[in-house]
Amino acid sequence: MQDLLCFANDRFQPVLESGVSLQDLGVLRGYGIFDFLRVSEGVPLFLDDHLDRFFYSADVMGLEVKKSRHALTMIVHHLIKENKLKNSGIRLLLTGGDSVDGYQLGEPNLVVVQQQITPPADSINHAGFVLASYAYQRQLSEVKTTDYLMAIWLQPWMKKKQADDILYHHNGMVNECPRSNVFIVTQQNQLVTPAENMLKGITRKNIIKISNAIGMKVVERNILLEEIKLAKEVFITSSTKRIVPISQLDETLYPPCTPNSVTWKLFDLLCEHERQYIHAEKD
Amino acid sequence: MQDLLCFANDRFQPVLESGVSLQDLGVLRGYGIFDFLRVSEGVPLFLDDHLDRFFYSADVMGLEVKKSRHALTMIVHHLIKENKLKNSGIRLLLTGGDSVDGYQLGEPNLVVVQQQITPPADSINHAGFVLASYAYQRQLSEVKTTDYLMAIWLQPWMKKKQADDILYHHNGMVNECPRSNVFIVTQQNQLVTPAENMLKGITRKNIIKISNAIGMKVVERNILLEEIKLAKEVFITSSTKRIVPISQLDETLYPPCTPNSVTWKLFDLLCEHERQYIHAEKD
Repeated sequence: MQDLLCFANDRFQPVLESGVSLQDLGVLRGYGIFDFLRVSEGVPLFLDDHLDRFFYSADVMGLEVKKSRHALTMIVHHLIKENKLKNSGIRLLLTGGDSVDGYQLGEPNLVVVQQQITPPADSINHAGFVLASYAYQRQLSEVKTTDYLMAIWLQPWMKKKQADDILYHHNGMVNECPRSNVFIVTQQNQLVTPAENMLKGITRKNIIKISNAIGMKVVERNILLEEIKLAKEVFITSSTKRIVPISQLDETLYPPCTPNSVTWKLFDLLCEHERQYIHAEKD
Repeated sequence: MQDLLCFANDRFQPVLESGVSLQDLGVLRGYGIFDFLRVSEGVPLFLDDHLDRFFYSADVMGLEVKKSRHALTMIVHHLIKENKLKNSGIRLLLTGGDSVDGYQLGEPNLVVVQQQITPPADSINHAGFVLASYAYQRQLSEVKTTDYLMAIWLQPWMKKKQADDILYHHNGMVNECPRSNVFIVTQQNQLVTPAENMLKGITRKNIIKISNAIGMKVVERNILLEEIKLAKEVFITSSTKRIVPISQLDETLYPPCTPNSVTWKLFDLLCEHERQYIHAEKD
């Protein structure tokens, strides 16, 4: 890791000189929340939406964010300016802080770190991903906690299944992938995404906002595991991957993604939405 | 926190100069395991049992412990010798380590920290604890992971309920408290503790080993939530608290703990077992 500047201990400092104390509940008890956003052409994409979610997560977890929304925005822009990374992501992390006894909450510890990332391609990955389904629901599933215990624990299982990602389902309902939301296009040409029991992604939010441009309206409702297997199209969305078509879920194969697919059209639409956002921010 | 010596980054160093990197999956993704043992009269209590469980937890989580059992034992004894703490606990922590992308496992990061603790009293807390029940089962419940998300999140709820601790149950079965095991004495004078879906504590193990001295044999089987409410006695066990009687669970009140109670007798027996252990270790 390059020695980039980060924000920690209430000041800007080199990331290699920064860390989390051995009394912090983030490491001792896995108690923390975060958000992660992509930076494109020096613009932190959809920063306001990410900050909304960051403050929401902190609130549910009883963690006070000592910085204002404005201060966090300034910190993000300062890191982008100083680190001069071409392709990057920014992580805002808030942990339970140093605990007197290793259990009681301390003063929340805020860290903002920028890191190099591989940017998503500007054309769709039409080959798509293979998903393996797994019965599980994240704890406090609508909060972006740092709890990825099952996701990381399942990596060897996923690789054995020759899958690219995992689809969590619970009580027969489709929830989400560990780091992505899931959408389907039904046989009736309905564009559907689960309504609850998952993290509401910012890309998911953008798709709900812009899909009418291709004549589709997103329906938020439960999706049965049986229903996803009968879908015409399935795709997943995330801030770092944009939209990735699903070619296979367990034993179910989906038709190839083509320029006529809803998935492909939404990918192009999302790229255009991003360009407009960047253009507006740069003005 | 005093500036004690700890073991981190493969060497002994002051704990205040130690920490976990901002790339460590322990803090970024809550991926880690630990064990915690009490030190009494300079003796790390039941160290072998704690090491067994530490290696087991590491194995299930796919985390390699780079130190041998012997080396860990030496580290523990060195900290006890150097830190000269009267009453303390020792935490062995193993995290997913520094990740290249914040998601893939790195080289596991091993930390051993000693900290001051309030020792348990040498006589039983006969007033006991009040428990509030909550439907939940820990992820990978037989592994001592650092995942205490729900336990910490539930603290304000627990205080509102005027409870001292939380009793997790799942599918109508009693599991455990966040940091303790649970035992009951049934109306038929059976001493029972859950067999599965919980962390197998070292104090639990000791009680199973020694209870025949008071003419009781521990039965390991499922306990229904309805059954625990009908129990004659309920108590919880942990390395730091030994045995604490339960005076109340939700609306159910239990009879006071007296010198004739199984709970009381087991407490005295456990104290004696500890003294014998310390005596043998000191020889």
